Amino acid sequence: VEQNKTKQIEEIFTEVHYADLAELFEEVNPDLAVAIIKILDTDKTSDAIVELDEDIREHILKGLSSEEIAKEVDELDTDDAADVLSELSEEQKEEVISKIEDVEHAKDIVDLLRYDDDTAGGLMGKELVKVNESWSNMRSIKEMRLQAEEVEKVYTIYVVDDNDVLKGRLSLKSLLTTSTKTSVSQVYSPSITSVKVDDKAEDVAKVMQKYDLVVVAVVDEMNRLVGQITIDDIVDIIIDEAKEDYQMAAGITDDVEASDSILELTRARLPWLILGLLGGLGAAAIMGSFDETLSKFPVLFFFTPLIAAMGGNVGVQSSAIIVQGLANNNIKGSLWSRLFKEIGLSLINGTVLGLLVIGYGFIQDFDVLTSITIVLSLIIVIIIAALIGTFVPIVLHKRGIDPALATGPFITTSNDIFGIFIYFSIAKLILPI
Amino acid sequence: VEQNKTKQIEEIFTEVHYADLAELFEEVNPDLAVAIIKILDTDKTSDAIVELDEDIREHILKGLSSEEIAKEVDELDTDDAADVLSELSEEQKEEVISKIEDVEHAKDIVDLLRYDDDTAGGLMGKELVKVNESWSNMRSIKEMRLQAEEVEKVYTIYVVDDNDVLKGRLSLKSLLTTSTKTSVSQVYSPSITSVKVDDKAEDVAKVMQKYDLVVVAVVDEMNRLVGQITIDDIVDIIIDEAKEDYQMAAGITDDVEASDSILELTRARLPWLILGLLGGLGAAAIMGSFDETLSKFPVLFFFTPLIAAMGGNVGVQSSAIIVQGLANNNIKGSLWSRLFKEIGLSLINGTVLGLLVIGYGFIQDFDVLTSITIVLSLIIVIIIAALIGTFVPIVLHKRGIDPALATGPFITTSNDIFGIFIYFSIAKLILPI
Repeated sequence: VEQNKTKQIEEIFTEVHYADLAELFEEVNPDLAVAIIKILDTDKTSDAIVELDEDIREHILKGLSSEEIAKEVDELDTDDAADVLSELSEEQKEEVISKIEDVEHAKDIVDLLRYDDDTAGGLMGKELVKVNESWSNMRSIKEMRLQAEEVEKVYTIYVVDDNDVLKGRLSLKSLLTTSTKTSVSQVYSPSITSVKVDDKAEDVAKVMQKYDLVVVAVVDEMNRLVGQITIDDIVDIIIDEAKEDYQMAAGITDDVEASDSILELTRARLPWLILGLLGGLGAAAIMGSFDETLSKFPVLFFFTPLIAAMGGNVGVQSSAIIVQGLANNNIKGSLWSRLFKEIGLSLINGTVLGLLVIGYGFIQDFDVLTSITIVLSLIIVIIIAALIGTFVPIVLHKRGIDPALATGPFITTSNDIFGIFIYFSIAKLILPI
Repeated sequence: VEQNKTKQIEEIFTEVHYADLAELFEEVNPDLAVAIIKILDTDKTSDAIVELDEDIREHILKGLSSEEIAKEVDELDTDDAADVLSELSEEQKEEVISKIEDVEHAKDIVDLLRYDDDTAGGLMGKELVKVNESWSNMRSIKEMRLQAEEVEKVYTIYVVDDNDVLKGRLSLKSLLTTSTKTSVSQVYSPSITSVKVDDKAEDVAKVMQKYDLVVVAVVDEMNRLVGQITIDDIVDIIIDEAKEDYQMAAGITDDVEASDSILELTRARLPWLILGLLGGLGAAAIMGSFDETLSKFPVLFFFTPLIAAMGGNVGVQSSAIIVQGLANNNIKGSLWSRLFKEIGLSLINGTVLGLLVIGYGFIQDFDVLTSITIVLSLIIVIIIAALIGTFVPIVLHKRGIDPALATGPFITTSNDIFGIFIYFSIAKLILPI
């Protein structure tokens, strides 16, 4: 009966893509996922394991023996294999590596484990197809046949010299359109983009985006070809970065998802809420110090949320535009021109909003000085919020700090406080107290 | 002298990559860019033109004659050519098309212009390499040589039948590792992912991301191969979407950049600020209606910014997590479990923050009832803000509206108003008025 079931499960899953299998594993009980993995061919399950969320993968790997993990890893490309192994304990990592059958594969993986996760070395795979510049097209095709057995997809045929130094690439086109006796050195293209093994992952992403690359060669300090990075790994980095900036702007540290535990979510959110609370208490203290002004003109009270909110909104808008501009490397022009632009923009927005407030004051029959106080404060708060939202990220960026820190709760909280302080200071100046 | 200069310019730019050339064009005076384009080979300038920002491209195309544009378009892949042409006026479009030398190329471009920008058809290119399943490997290589002349990069060799219906793909590996006499039908792989020509661009992006595809086949209603989409076009879509969600959360409509004009920036930002202003006026009206409560307990005033800010912060956090979850398709579990989770999370955060406020009240010597009013309001406002932030995006998503609308100014403004209303209602209940 057992054997019969096994066969049935195998049949059900033959047509299923590994990405769909991974999706299934994320939805069922991890123990069931482990049971299915043990039945199915490692050819398919190994790729599914790579696609899993880290938490779930950790859970599933715990259900497999070192020998079983070694078999899965044996099927994987070196970069994915290194990613899976790096999540194991030192002890288990060694045990799994010792049980990988293909010794060359194991060597490559150990090699990759040396590199930092967020460098080109940490992203690259060792599988690639390369030919020597001295070979003929005929010999190249023969050698490529052998190499292709190990490589899942051939993106680029690299051309190297005897010392493995990267010389260029051989296009399939020129291989197909020239005679088999032609030497590679005569037909290869020397224009090839490469990154250094120590380059930061985000810089690799920028290079691949800018030059529309599907794959990029990775070279060492001596320009020797050591691996290649494919676009799918880079897409993940690009998405993660955009996600991170957005989460930071929303006041969420750590990479959390809706499905994470309450504790994880609290850890990501509470610190920013405490910052907001301290800001609120600061605002309360400032208002307390203007006690006298307020007792004479209690109507001013009603507009503190408005002033605070507008400061926050403008600050978030300005900072979001700058942070995205910095991320995409397109903040151009001098700081002065940016200053004038922000002030101009704020004056336009402030005037329109101010006219609306004057209209409201007219309907509500406010006295003129109160209306002037509110409108003047509004315009000044908008200008200052725009300047803070623009220049704090620029300064942070110049000092090598992630400018996204200066978005969201940080900017709203500080603009709340500044806004309220400016509001009551102006009230004290204008109103007859 | 003129000729000498032309030669010099040509020499300077021979080694420059088109992406770098595009960067240069974006920084110099558009007239200078036009002058350089007229001198350099269309082979390089055409790709640079594609990389440009839309505004700058428009400006540069205006400086070129229809004949010159036709020459640039002639060099481009069909998908890029269609993108450039779609930005011209109907009249000029026709004129340019009539001047494209390669008639087959022109036909393909006209074909592509029929499709909507944000569908698979609008993204695909016509250039691809395909073989008939009935051919031998030898014949395939011969035919591919001819096709490869037109195609810049060969990602996949498609296999079709006599009616052009997509059957699968031929891997370079099996082409290289089997005899030249073998028939394609014996060695091709039938497992291939394709999208329909009318599929939405964002769905294509999801498919390519999920299955880690570098290229995807596009088929028509009869499953005939009509084009292919490469990952570089999809990366742009993924980035744009992430950028859009972030901008929406920051209260910025339209796709603006720091370098856009003050008018464009105003149009993108002012509507959200007006929404915020109306919220602020609403808050003022609510506070006005609690006049009596406030005049007896003026200290309550001091904490309205705090209550409003905390409601806003929590709402933004909750909505950001849900919007990202919806975008990545990983909101799982029932609405009830999500409800309990949000309430649990809010109770934990609210309790911690409440204790801080009690500590502050103790130092400031508040009376007990005032402290209780503030803390109770804070906890209830946090719970309600979390629920609004969570469920409004879910409801919008279910109704087919972009959930990102319910982040940023919309959520902060409504939470401001709700927060202040709850605060004063609780004050009225608890305090002896």
